[in-house]
Amino acid sequence: MSKDLFLPHIRNIEGYIPGEQPRAGEYIKLNTNENPYPPSPNVIVAVRNACNSQLRRYPDPDAYSVVVRLSKLFGISENQIVVGNGSDELLNVALRCFAGTGQRVALPFPTYPYYQKLIELQNAVAQRFDLDENFSIPEDFPPTDANLSLLANPNSPTGTAIDSRSVGRMATQTQGVLLVDEAYVDFSDVGCIDLIEHHSNLLVLRTMSKSFSLAAMRIGFCFGHPDLISGLRKVIDHYNVNALSQIAASTALDEIDYMKSNVVRIRATRERLEKALKALGFYVWDSNANFVLARIESPPAAELHRILKERCILVRYFNEVRLENCLRISVGTDIENDRLIKELTDII
Amino acid sequence: MSKDLFLPHIRNIEGYIPGEQPRAGEYIKLNTNENPYPPSPNVIVAVRNACNSQLRRYPDPDAYSVVVRLSKLFGISENQIVVGNGSDELLNVALRCFAGTGQRVALPFPTYPYYQKLIELQNAVAQRFDLDENFSIPEDFPPTDANLSLLANPNSPTGTAIDSRSVGRMATQTQGVLLVDEAYVDFSDVGCIDLIEHHSNLLVLRTMSKSFSLAAMRIGFCFGHPDLISGLRKVIDHYNVNALSQIAASTALDEIDYMKSNVVRIRATRERLEKALKALGFYVWDSNANFVLARIESPPAAELHRILKERCILVRYFNEVRLENCLRISVGTDIENDRLIKELTDII
Repeated sequence: MSKDLFLPHIRNIEGYIPGEQPRAGEYIKLNTNENPYPPSPNVIVAVRNACNSQLRRYPDPDAYSVVVRLSKLFGISENQIVVGNGSDELLNVALRCFAGTGQRVALPFPTYPYYQKLIELQNAVAQRFDLDENFSIPEDFPPTDANLSLLANPNSPTGTAIDSRSVGRMATQTQGVLLVDEAYVDFSDVGCIDLIEHHSNLLVLRTMSKSFSLAAMRIGFCFGHPDLISGLRKVIDHYNVNALSQIAASTALDEIDYMKSNVVRIRATRERLEKALKALGFYVWDSNANFVLARIESPPAAELHRILKERCILVRYFNEVRLENCLRISVGTDIENDRLIKELTDII
Repeated sequence: MSKDLFLPHIRNIEGYIPGEQPRAGEYIKLNTNENPYPPSPNVIVAVRNACNSQLRRYPDPDAYSVVVRLSKLFGISENQIVVGNGSDELLNVALRCFAGTGQRVALPFPTYPYYQKLIELQNAVAQRFDLDENFSIPEDFPPTDANLSLLANPNSPTGTAIDSRSVGRMATQTQGVLLVDEAYVDFSDVGCIDLIEHHSNLLVLRTMSKSFSLAAMRIGFCFGHPDLISGLRKVIDHYNVNALSQIAASTALDEIDYMKSNVVRIRATRERLEKALKALGFYVWDSNANFVLARIESPPAAELHRILKERCILVRYFNEVRLENCLRISVGTDIENDRLIKELTDII
């Protein structure tokens, strides 16, 4: 009975199932692309110091301390920036702004599966563009006339990436909005924030959940033309970013070198992980992110996933078209990496 | 040009302007109904202790530590509860679930102005029911056939409230969803969470921003029939509640008496504030919240608002129909209250 009260398109969708977050037990957790290294000690101290009587106050609705630092860091104006409760919230808001009932949202396939859910929530229509065997993007993406095109760059779960020039060409190719989700960009050599100066239909998303080791704090950024940003601001919840998250973000942005040094370590471990997986017989795609996508048929990936879990190592298994027999493995510390390879060697 | 990329109903709405959050200066801040007392010392300690390397992890998507405590506190099942990034997020999600383009959302007027914005975001149609001179709710609210009816109880900015029996009658009167926003309920003698057992179309919202002194942490709760809650969960962002907010919430819920002792103090100050305002010639509505709505015509409320701000006291002035010459004054500490009355006496 109560179910009938929902709008039909909401009633009919499935819930999104995020990567497993175990509540107990000692897992090596390589399934949700968290950073294996802690946030900067200064970030932890700053957040601790902000835990005081002022928690009774509402946060700054504009997250101004964060915006001002992003403006400086990327050499863009404050009115080209909006901060979200994770980039998930910003994706959500973008879908609400640009894609209504029956309208088309273009996206490559496979990509971050959450996009599909967001499209369904808006009762919009997903137009999928199949990546080729190497996970390259077909030339007709994005289509000229889609209201919105979504591009994860680097892409998840494939780890593939395209350069800024190609993104610029894509922004020119579509008359709708091109949203580029750069969640993993700090682990790559790409990135296109500069392009917002030249393409008034381009939105670029970033997050502090991966490279900045702040997944717990839910901080995302969106960059674009001032008209796009002011429209997004109309839709976003006005007190969306927690006061402590604003402190964490502004402190972390003052210490970009700390983040970069972790990225260097993660990239080195990623290279070792790729080599070791290949030596074990996996097919491995070149990764531009803090995870590696690897395919193996014997033993089947589902089986490997299960046995690794029994041995307290969580990796992500996708039982999906185009990702048959694939595991997505987050890059951990070197110790975690060695342990994973040891167990895989033992199993295989 | 970029503006044309937005859906028409988004393009045409105005942004919502929240109460002023001054970034600098020493204001007595009585404009956004924050609690004048800090959160419990144990909450501050618990959040501080959680500021560690684990900030690199995603939060529990189910906020289970919070849900389990709410379940015990209110004697309801875990599947009757969902936690949000403030009750604003839960309102947002409810609108997306129950009110599509052109559908009707009923609400009393005047009430929390954010409801109007949320209705516009969904391109739904607001059906306003004018409160009478005493701000009582007309008998034909909620209408039988609205998809969704919104009721703030206690209401803001009027401070008026209705009892649980009246809410039950309302839930029976409508075939759509009745959402009761109990943001201020801890400052009153009303409250209707019990009714969710009997009315499968009833949702009840609460927040930790007011009585629990945790506005910075963005924590809201929604209670209802398991079918309603599971539908809301499909729509809500999966990592919506910050990990530190989950710690703050679960610790604060273990210490309800601390919150209640602050409420007792605030209610006592509220009574003194009401008396003092009446003595100064204000018309004052009986308040069931942590604010007081007061009308004065000479000097005009706008003028009072301006002069108080010059004297570093912020109150809320509504330049709106039905709220002409009204100020909404949050209940502060006794010292803040005395200072306000002193300044008002001086001005008047």
